[in-house]
Amino acid sequence: MNSQTIGNLHSMFYPQAIAIIGASSKPGKIGYALLKNIVEYGYEGRVYPINPERGEILGLETYPRVQDVPEKVDLAIISVPAQGVPGVMDDCAKKCVRGALIITSGFSEVGEEGRKLENQVLEIARRGNVRVIGPNMMGIVNTAGKLNALFVLPKAIPGEIAFISQSGAMGNAILSLGSKLRIGFSKFVSIGNMADIDFSDLLEYLENDNDTRVIAMYIEGLRDARRFLRVAERVTRTKPVIVIKAGRSKAGARAITSHTGYLAGSDRIYDAAFRQARVFRTNSIEELFDVAKAMAYQGGLAGRRVAIVTNSGGPGIMASDACEDQGLTVSELDQVTVNRLREGLPRICSTKNPVDLVANADPERYRFAIETVAGDPQVDGVLVILTPPDAIIPRGSTTIAQEIVSLTRVLKKPLVTSWMGGVEVEEGIMVLEEHRIPNFPTPERAVRAMAFMSRFPSRKK
Amino acid sequence: MNSQTIGNLHSMFYPQAIAIIGASSKPGKIGYALLKNIVEYGYEGRVYPINPERGEILGLETYPRVQDVPEKVDLAIISVPAQGVPGVMDDCAKKCVRGALIITSGFSEVGEEGRKLENQVLEIARRGNVRVIGPNMMGIVNTAGKLNALFVLPKAIPGEIAFISQSGAMGNAILSLGSKLRIGFSKFVSIGNMADIDFSDLLEYLENDNDTRVIAMYIEGLRDARRFLRVAERVTRTKPVIVIKAGRSKAGARAITSHTGYLAGSDRIYDAAFRQARVFRTNSIEELFDVAKAMAYQGGLAGRRVAIVTNSGGPGIMASDACEDQGLTVSELDQVTVNRLREGLPRICSTKNPVDLVANADPERYRFAIETVAGDPQVDGVLVILTPPDAIIPRGSTTIAQEIVSLTRVLKKPLVTSWMGGVEVEEGIMVLEEHRIPNFPTPERAVRAMAFMSRFPSRKK
Repeated sequence: MNSQTIGNLHSMFYPQAIAIIGASSKPGKIGYALLKNIVEYGYEGRVYPINPERGEILGLETYPRVQDVPEKVDLAIISVPAQGVPGVMDDCAKKCVRGALIITSGFSEVGEEGRKLENQVLEIARRGNVRVIGPNMMGIVNTAGKLNALFVLPKAIPGEIAFISQSGAMGNAILSLGSKLRIGFSKFVSIGNMADIDFSDLLEYLENDNDTRVIAMYIEGLRDARRFLRVAERVTRTKPVIVIKAGRSKAGARAITSHTGYLAGSDRIYDAAFRQARVFRTNSIEELFDVAKAMAYQGGLAGRRVAIVTNSGGPGIMASDACEDQGLTVSELDQVTVNRLREGLPRICSTKNPVDLVANADPERYRFAIETVAGDPQVDGVLVILTPPDAIIPRGSTTIAQEIVSLTRVLKKPLVTSWMGGVEVEEGIMVLEEHRIPNFPTPERAVRAMAFMSRFPSRKK
Repeated sequence: MNSQTIGNLHSMFYPQAIAIIGASSKPGKIGYALLKNIVEYGYEGRVYPINPERGEILGLETYPRVQDVPEKVDLAIISVPAQGVPGVMDDCAKKCVRGALIITSGFSEVGEEGRKLENQVLEIARRGNVRVIGPNMMGIVNTAGKLNALFVLPKAIPGEIAFISQSGAMGNAILSLGSKLRIGFSKFVSIGNMADIDFSDLLEYLENDNDTRVIAMYIEGLRDARRFLRVAERVTRTKPVIVIKAGRSKAGARAITSHTGYLAGSDRIYDAAFRQARVFRTNSIEELFDVAKAMAYQGGLAGRRVAIVTNSGGPGIMASDACEDQGLTVSELDQVTVNRLREGLPRICSTKNPVDLVANADPERYRFAIETVAGDPQVDGVLVILTPPDAIIPRGSTTIAQEIVSLTRVLKKPLVTSWMGGVEVEEGIMVLEEHRIPNFPTPERAVRAMAFMSRFPSRKK
């Protein structure tokens, strides 16, 4: 990709002025929802609703055509019927708009006639150097620029994960689930039919985006797989790329063809290529979230040796089993470490790994044990488990979380947690995650995330 | 097990009168928390705090010894220091108490001396025909009898899953997580050291417990594996038994030895034996919950053929992939079904399986599609997926849930859902789960649960 594309994409993510072509004053219309979301999310640039009828929408003056806007337009968002898009694109080209999101559907995804229309639009765009995301997409988000250009309810919270989705509704569900799980996004792109901008372009753009630490994608098919892999091979040297490639099964591949018109492609080839490019492939949305969060918050593990600190034997055992499943090692602690633990902990505690601090473990005991095991050269990362201690230590799950947060400021090794339970541990989990300690509802999921972190040993915290 | 044991256990789960030996007036003490939990959870029988000092605790008159209680005592809950337990058990035997929970720790789990003490207590109990759960346990719950005899915060909500845990803290975390996920329990038992009552006894008791549809267990080691398998083989003919057997790995097995003193045993042998007894083994707490909920709410699937109905292509593809992973078939729909769908649905919808109702699908479209595919002889169960439609159909995720609830009253085949997203779909999920439609946050987890349901083809809804 030439630097010009990067420039265009940058203008689209950080526009000074946006035109919404097909803006509507009717609640329920996409052209109304788009405008409302942009305004309500706090966008600080100028917004120009474009509508043939003169007037105001949400207090903003409308303009009949994009050419009538009294300043340069960086981003045009197009939501007019498909047949009207070529004309609108012509206007955008004349206005020297840097980029357009074509929300409208009814293009190549519906068959031959749509494909012709899509090509026609693209030709006009190319001539005018307007870069296009879409058509058949639901918008983009840039939380750092306070831009929420989606026609569904805005819900992305700021964070370090960029997410690109080839399914609009899937992207919407992911944003919604993310906000429930307090997972933050830097950028979000519903990529649509990829008439112009595709996964590789965005990958190159995100490679140098300082707000993005982890890139996640939902892919149904690639236009140019070779280019994608070439780009991914470079990007994954500095940022983890996590991918769901749907349509692995016969049933799934059939469904893709009727969904986007894409061929899913041979799954084995995808698998091999992803491996070569160090792209992490997952088959589950839950795993995608878990590993993205872990990498965004804590970065890579220098090795595969884990220390487990817990206030309850059972979950420590479950975590040990999970480590072996996932190819991690439950470290054999150095004799010096064991001796220190033995001196500093009550006799009833287990000083082997997993270190069991037993039910009445207080914040100080947790701190001492974590500091001690993290100082062991045999340990690359620490998993801290807690089952509700609140019957014995009032607000224990919160105060222990606070102690760990203060400890991680000086700790040199990655740390993840599993505060297990419901309402009793919720406050503690909030404390942990606000301070970038990734928490998982079960030890198994925490261990799975650590196994992923160990794939990026070179990454600095 | 003879019917006498069942009788004793029944008296322990449904006691007329409880004595709490070691009851305390000091908040923070286990003997206080136990009493408080029992009273606050709404227990309707009589409760007698036993304490050498006369007086009142929480408004209840105390008695110096269990013999002084003016009526028959069904259940004694013992929370006095370990050295005092033999004397207390002697009192219980004299009083003809039916069963005792020994909360106190410091017995076989701490070594040889503790083992001797445990044997001494057991001998006294046997002589007096007092059945014992524990020692070293955290209590029991029977939601149907409004009995919450735990010393941690009470949180079990009523339901149809019985859970037996060999780790107290793990059990506590499971109850807490369950209540957050709105998963209800019939009985809960922290089984402790299994000096007397063990997994097999409880399995036999639960076999005939009408409140229990699914039995789940967390096991570190079995005392008599042969007996367990013999019992399980019988019980699984009528009720699914789901087990986490921890200590599969070397690290995990080591940790068990230092946790309960049990030998984890050869994992391969456990695996084979569980398979023979049709006990479903899982390695994750999340899967345990998912499959238990699915079976409790919907029962078994007659076969492995699934129809998928969705308002969004991407998740439908993910579900198709997951079906193939899990050994389920995405049904090829009967031509009659396809024709009916084609007639009744807008042209833009996909009438192949997965049936894509597209983003503007309303409750009626969902109802029509689900009814139609469920009527197909090629379909054994239905997975319904929804991504938030609320931008287009206000409160769509709730109204579609309501439509499905009304439909399942007449539907003859099991149905599970995946309402994907956060706050927008929460109300809809509440509606579904209140009416025993199991919902899963991702299609992959829904499919995994359906695969489990297909292992119980004979089970009636």
